[in-house]
Amino acid sequence: MDTAIINTKLITLQGHGLGIIDDGAVAFSHGKISFVGKTSSLDKGEVENIIDGRDHVTMPGLVNAHTHTGLTILRGGAQDVPEIEWMNRALGPIARHLKEKDLVLGAKLGVIEGLRSGITTFGEYTTNIEELIREVYQPFHVRVAATETINEVISDKTKIGPKDVYELDPIKGNISLGKTEKLHREYADTKLVEILYGPQALDMVSPETLDKVKESASKLKAKIHMHVAQGERERLQVKGRYGKGATTVKILDELGMIDDDLIAVHCHDTTENEKRSLVEKGACMVGCPSSISMIDGIVPPVWEFLSLGGTVGLGTDQAPGPGTHNMFREMRTIALLTKTKYRDPTVLPPWQTLRLGSLEGAKVLGLDDTIGTLEEGKSADVITVNLSRPNMTPSVDFPFHNYVANLVYSTTGFEVDNVIIEGKFIIRDGNFVQVDERKVVEEVQDRAVTLFKDATDDWEDSESHLVNVFRKGLL
Amino acid sequence: MDTAIINTKLITLQGHGLGIIDDGAVAFSHGKISFVGKTSSLDKGEVENIIDGRDHVTMPGLVNAHTHTGLTILRGGAQDVPEIEWMNRALGPIARHLKEKDLVLGAKLGVIEGLRSGITTFGEYTTNIEELIREVYQPFHVRVAATETINEVISDKTKIGPKDVYELDPIKGNISLGKTEKLHREYADTKLVEILYGPQALDMVSPETLDKVKESASKLKAKIHMHVAQGERERLQVKGRYGKGATTVKILDELGMIDDDLIAVHCHDTTENEKRSLVEKGACMVGCPSSISMIDGIVPPVWEFLSLGGTVGLGTDQAPGPGTHNMFREMRTIALLTKTKYRDPTVLPPWQTLRLGSLEGAKVLGLDDTIGTLEEGKSADVITVNLSRPNMTPSVDFPFHNYVANLVYSTTGFEVDNVIIEGKFIIRDGNFVQVDERKVVEEVQDRAVTLFKDATDDWEDSESHLVNVFRKGLL
Repeated sequence: MDTAIINTKLITLQGHGLGIIDDGAVAFSHGKISFVGKTSSLDKGEVENIIDGRDHVTMPGLVNAHTHTGLTILRGGAQDVPEIEWMNRALGPIARHLKEKDLVLGAKLGVIEGLRSGITTFGEYTTNIEELIREVYQPFHVRVAATETINEVISDKTKIGPKDVYELDPIKGNISLGKTEKLHREYADTKLVEILYGPQALDMVSPETLDKVKESASKLKAKIHMHVAQGERERLQVKGRYGKGATTVKILDELGMIDDDLIAVHCHDTTENEKRSLVEKGACMVGCPSSISMIDGIVPPVWEFLSLGGTVGLGTDQAPGPGTHNMFREMRTIALLTKTKYRDPTVLPPWQTLRLGSLEGAKVLGLDDTIGTLEEGKSADVITVNLSRPNMTPSVDFPFHNYVANLVYSTTGFEVDNVIIEGKFIIRDGNFVQVDERKVVEEVQDRAVTLFKDATDDWEDSESHLVNVFRKGLL
Repeated sequence: MDTAIINTKLITLQGHGLGIIDDGAVAFSHGKISFVGKTSSLDKGEVENIIDGRDHVTMPGLVNAHTHTGLTILRGGAQDVPEIEWMNRALGPIARHLKEKDLVLGAKLGVIEGLRSGITTFGEYTTNIEELIREVYQPFHVRVAATETINEVISDKTKIGPKDVYELDPIKGNISLGKTEKLHREYADTKLVEILYGPQALDMVSPETLDKVKESASKLKAKIHMHVAQGERERLQVKGRYGKGATTVKILDELGMIDDDLIAVHCHDTTENEKRSLVEKGACMVGCPSSISMIDGIVPPVWEFLSLGGTVGLGTDQAPGPGTHNMFREMRTIALLTKTKYRDPTVLPPWQTLRLGSLEGAKVLGLDDTIGTLEEGKSADVITVNLSRPNMTPSVDFPFHNYVANLVYSTTGFEVDNVIIEGKFIIRDGNFVQVDERKVVEEVQDRAVTLFKDATDDWEDSESHLVNVFRKGLL
C-alpha cells in the first residue's frame, strides 16, 4: 500500500448513516482504496507513507454536482436583483465581454477554491467543455463529470423582453451535440473524466434537438444533465413556445426525457405532482441552495425530493450570485433554509446533509461505483478536515459524535487540509502540491479589472436594479 | 501617529451607505483614529508604522451584539431537536455538568474564534460575568458590553414539564442585580468594558425584580439587555404566570420596561403591532440568524424591525446550535434567510447587511460614540480583510465595487488578517500577537472529553430527539 491515514475519525458513508469508525484508518494503493477499518487492524509494515490523522475527520471527497466554474471570474458581479433581471440584465451585460480564455481562467479559480474546501468531483457545465478538461481538470488531476452546453438561442437576450420567445437555431444545437458525441468517444477510457449530455433548458433547445439528444445519450448510456423548471423566466418562455397549459415537466415528459438518465437541476418551479413524477420515473435532482436563495429568493426543493424518496445532490452553480464554490457552505445553507421553510429544526439533520454533499452527489452523476464512500476497491478520493481549529473545537466520540454537527454547521471549508484524488495528493497539509494558486489569483484579478471596465457602458445601459443602487451611492 | 494602513479599500461606514474611499488610508494614535481619507492626503512622514493595505478591505471591527461565549465548550452538543426540547432536554443534561471554570475556558475559545473572524466587540451575557471580564476580555484586550445574567429560576428544568411554571426565587435575582450594580461602579472608568443589566427573560425573573432592575438601570443610565419573546417555551411560561391573554411584550410594557434603554434580543414571538410598539418606544432589537434558524426553525424578524425604522444588530448567541462565533457568517445567513422568507432577492442587500454586523450593532449596545465607523476621534477598532484569497477574487472598484457583495456572500471569516482594538494589534498578519490560541484549543478539547463523558447518563436519560437518533446509529 502506498499511503495510509491512521488514528483518524473515519466517516466511511457506508450503510444508511455515516458509517463512522472511531480511531479508523484508510489506506490506498495505485489510486484505489485497499483498506478501511480500525487502525489496530491495519498492517502498518506494508505501508510506505503513514499520515497521522488524529484530530481530523477523514471522509470521501465532496461532490459538487452542478457548477459553471468559468463564471467565477465575474464573482460579485450580479446579485440582489429581481430574478427576472439576473441573467439577462445583471450578469449578461458583463458576461458578454467574456472571451473564451476568460472561462478557462475563471474555471481554474473556481476549481481551486472548490478543492480548498474539499470538492474532488465537479459536475461542470459550460460551452467548450473540452478546453476546461484539457486546461483545468486534467492538469489539476481533478475528477469531472463534464457537460457541454447545448443551447440554440440566437436572440440577443439583453435586447428582448421577458415575454418575447427566444429564437432558436437547431444548427447551433447540433454542433454542440456533435461535440458531445465526439468527446464521449475520445474520453471513453480516460480516468477522472465522464462525459454527460447538456441540453441547457427546455426554453433554450428545440424539441427536435432534444429528441436527438435523448437518442444519442441512450445509445451511449450517458446521463443527461439539464436545468429543469428554474423559475419565472423559463416558465414564460415555455408557455410562449408550447402554449398556456405547458410546463417544463409536462413537455419533458411528452418528449420522453424523464427517466433515470435525467439529472434535473433546480426544479423549484414544479408542482408536488411533477416532483413525484420526476422521482417515480427515476430522475435525480440537484439543488443549489446558495444560488437559488440568492438569485430567486427560493429554498430549493431538496427536502421535498428526499421525502418522496428521490436521489438528491448539491451544487454551487456559479460564483456571481451565491459567491463561492464551497460544498460545506452549501450543506449548511440547505439545512438552515429548509429548517426555516418548514419551521422545524429537526429536518435535514447533519447525518443526512453530509451525505448529500458527497455520496448522494456521486449517485446523481452516476459515479457511485467509483467514488462516494470509503470502501475497498473504490477510487481514493479522500479529504481530511482539521477538527483542532478553534471553530471546530471540541470534538468528542462519546457519548455521541458531536463533530458530525460541527462538520455541517461550523466548518468554513478552510479546515480541509488534505485533498487526495485517485490516490494523488492535490493539497497536502494545507498547501497545493502542484497547482500555482497565487498565479491563478493574480491572472484572474488582472483580467477582471479590464473586463469589468470594458463592460461599463453595457452595464449602465441595462438600467438594472443594481445600477439604480449604484447611482444612489450604495455600491 | 503611531500606525497607518494605506493604499486600501476603505469602508468607513460614514453616511447612509458604506462610505467607501478608494485607495484610502486610516491612521491612529494612542488608540484613537487620527486620519481617515485618501492615501494621497496622508502625511506619511508623521507615521511610525506603515502597513500596506492593498488588496484588502479595511473597515470597522465587527460587533457581536449578543452572545454567550462560555457555552462554546459544548459546541455540537445540542441541535436538530424540536425547539421545546433544546434548552432543557438537549443542552441542559450536558450543561448541568459545567463548572464555573469551564465557562471561562469556553469563553476564551469563543472569543478567539470571534476575533479570527473580525469581531472586536462582544455583547457578552453570562453568569459570573466578572470572571470573564478579568480572565478573558481584559487579558485579551477585547471590547465587551458585559451583562450579568439575572435569573431567578430555582426549578430543576430537566425535571419539569413544558407547561409547569418555573418556581422563582427573588433572592437569587437580587444577588445578580447587586453584582451588576457593583460592577457598574467598579468598571465605570475602565476602557473596553461597559456594564449592562441582564434580566434573562420575562419567564425567568419576577416582576418585582424587573421593577428594581429598571429603576437601578435608569439611575445608572445603563442599557437593559434581555431575551424577549423567544418562542414556545417562553410563551407557555408567560401565559402560565400572567394569564392566557398575556404576551411578553404586553407584560414588559405594563412594567414600563420598553424604552430606548431596552435591547430586545430575538423577538420572533411578537405580533406586527408588538414589533411596531417596540420600535416606536425606541427599543433596539438583536437578531441571531444562525441560532434562531437552527434552534427554532425561524428567520429572526430583522427585516421587519428595519422596515419599521428600528435599530437592529446581529449576534452569534451560543455555539451549541448555530455552531460558531462568526459575524461574516451571521451577515450572510440573515441575508439568505430573509431573501427566501420574502421570496425577494432584493431584500437585505450587502450594503445594508454589512452595517448590521458593525455600526448598527454598536448603536444597539450604546457604543456608537466610541466605535462603529472609521472616523477621526473614534476608537481604533479596525480590521483588514484579505481580498486576494481565491474565494474573494476578483475585486474591482469600477464600474462598481463588486467586493461589497463578496464581503457578505463569499467571506468565510478566515480572510480577516489584522484585528486592531483601541489601536492595539490583537491579530497581525493572520497570527495572534499575544493570545495563545493552541493552548486554549487543547485545554477546551481535554476538558470537553471528560465533561461530555460525565454527562452520559443524564444525556441518555433525557430521551431527547437526539438520543433517539443516536440509538439508530446515526450520530
